[in-house]
Amino acid sequence: MEEGDFDRLEDLWLDDGAGDVSCVHPGWPVLTGRAEVLRSYALIMAHTDYIQFFLTDTRISLAGDTALVTCTENILSGGPAEDGAELGPLVGQLVVATNAFRRTPEGWRIWSHHASPVIAGPDDDAPPAATADDAGPSA
Amino acid sequence: MEEGDFDRLEDLWLDDGAGDVSCVHPGWPVLTGRAEVLRSYALIMAHTDYIQFFLTDTRISLAGDTALVTCTENILSGGPAEDGAELGPLVGQLVVATNAFRRTPEGWRIWSHHASPVIAGPDDDAPPAATADDAGPSA
Repeated sequence: MEEGDFDRLEDLWLDDGAGDVSCVHPGWPVLTGRAEVLRSYALIMAHTDYIQFFLTDTRISLAGDTALVTCTENILSGGPAEDGAELGPLVGQLVVATNAFRRTPEGWRIWSHHASPVIAGPDDDAPPAATADDAGPSA
Repeated sequence: MEEGDFDRLEDLWLDDGAGDVSCVHPGWPVLTGRAEVLRSYALIMAHTDYIQFFLTDTRISLAGDTALVTCTENILSGGPAEDGAELGPLVGQLVVATNAFRRTPEGWRIWSHHASPVIAGPDDDAPPAATADDAGPSA
């Protein structure tokens, strides 16, 4: 992603035959299927001239041929330059991600990626909004 | 969740012995482990007098003993009443969730829940922010 290498990014994602992939970028709705997911990355890359990830808090939970990886992404990025400048203004962003990986004969591949902005600090003792969240579709 | 039944919610989550659970509420950092996750739900329930979920776009991707479920959560909720009113003001919220479930002898249990606010509409053709997102920890 940092090198803008779309082909390598494409290789990381699970083939559709092995299960539907899904992806949520920060603030986005759910994208489903390889074509839709890869199109979104092409779009993001087209709008991003510079991007750097500082990953922290990486945790892995492994079960059989599936792994869940959570991490914090401290992202520094910049869009296209304006008015002849060399680079657009840099923006910092604090994001958390949950990634599901599947083990394949070719190695681990991304089955699902869900990233979202962190609005509340980890030490806040109350939800960031008056509203709340459920425990999944069976709630 | 709608009935505020903490015990039933607790039963839905995977036991720690079978793998570390993780949970991201909208705008929150990652919570890891059963104790931390369940504490967050107790906190949310304490701040929520009313909550209702309208789930749409539910999609399931199944692989062996793991299932990924994505959905859109249209949430209507209200906090505690103020000044003698019967109910606090109701707030609508548009959230998307990715849930990982594990099959156990007792049935399917939640391994991971990641929910986040939708800021851009699904028909927008540009990212909601100048910044972007990566493809996981291997980026």
